[in-house]
Amino acid sequence: MGDTLNIRPFAEADWPAVWRIMEPVIRAGDTYPYAIDMTAESAREMWLDIPEATYVAEDANGEIVGTYYLKPNQPTLGAHVVNAGYMVAESARGRGVGAQLCVHSQEEALRLGYRAMQYNLVVKTNEASVHLWQKMGFTIVGTLAGAFRHAEHGYVDAYVMYKELV
Amino acid sequence: MGDTLNIRPFAEADWPAVWRIMEPVIRAGDTYPYAIDMTAESAREMWLDIPEATYVAEDANGEIVGTYYLKPNQPTLGAHVVNAGYMVAESARGRGVGAQLCVHSQEEALRLGYRAMQYNLVVKTNEASVHLWQKMGFTIVGTLAGAFRHAEHGYVDAYVMYKELV
Repeated sequence: MGDTLNIRPFAEADWPAVWRIMEPVIRAGDTYPYAIDMTAESAREMWLDIPEATYVAEDANGEIVGTYYLKPNQPTLGAHVVNAGYMVAESARGRGVGAQLCVHSQEEALRLGYRAMQYNLVVKTNEASVHLWQKMGFTIVGTLAGAFRHAEHGYVDAYVMYKELV
Repeated sequence: MGDTLNIRPFAEADWPAVWRIMEPVIRAGDTYPYAIDMTAESAREMWLDIPEATYVAEDANGEIVGTYYLKPNQPTLGAHVVNAGYMVAESARGRGVGAQLCVHSQEEALRLGYRAMQYNLVVKTNEASVHLWQKMGFTIVGTLAGAFRHAEHGYVDAYVMYKELV
């Protein structure tokens, strides 16, 4: 599975490194629904302030190569289902970082008392992620026709993916 | 389809009537994920402040018998899909109010530029609503196992339902 990573809670000093990971992902407009010109301030709010918890992954050199958040996907009566979002540094792709983040996120979600994990909008054209989540035990429970406005391809389908954790 | 309703944008004077509709629905904990002890203030925020638009339905006597909201279901690159929530007064059930609200909401969503409508968490045990949305052209695109903590039945399945409007 590639590098041994140290995955730990986000600390304030991590922000510049986290933003360096997030910015190109957001600007590309091909995986997350955020505005491609989103400011660093809005990105902070979305990735750090709103979620219940945010984590970073350090490689053996102490470099931050990935990050993810956890948050309840719905209010109270649906708050036992967690939503997670992951980003991996462009320079660290293909090293199994995403898989390690996903495994860690499921363990943390269980520890925090969640019972299932849901991804609301997995862009169909993002095949690497779709396949990775399937390998991680997630099922495509539904297809949302044209639900994502891809920066390059226009309206494309997106999947709802889900995994029961308990 | 029952009564002829006047469906119009919410006005401030409508709040007491709207809250009278909302409170028993929230307290029942069998359709919406909101805390069953939710305050009127939190309900206002959820139904009026966060959404893009909120509407009420008046019957021929000028009584408010239903309400719904519209809001983007995702940020920017998913903001062309609208989410809607509907509530009908207990005293007005079985008069086709829900169907009229649903038709109106689709027309309004189109007028506001949306391309599809998504319900994120339709509780499987709420069969009347599931059938109504199907009659209104919505498809069950996926099933979320145990995603709703029903006040009476515990963890029950919920559906993601979807309809393309254009």
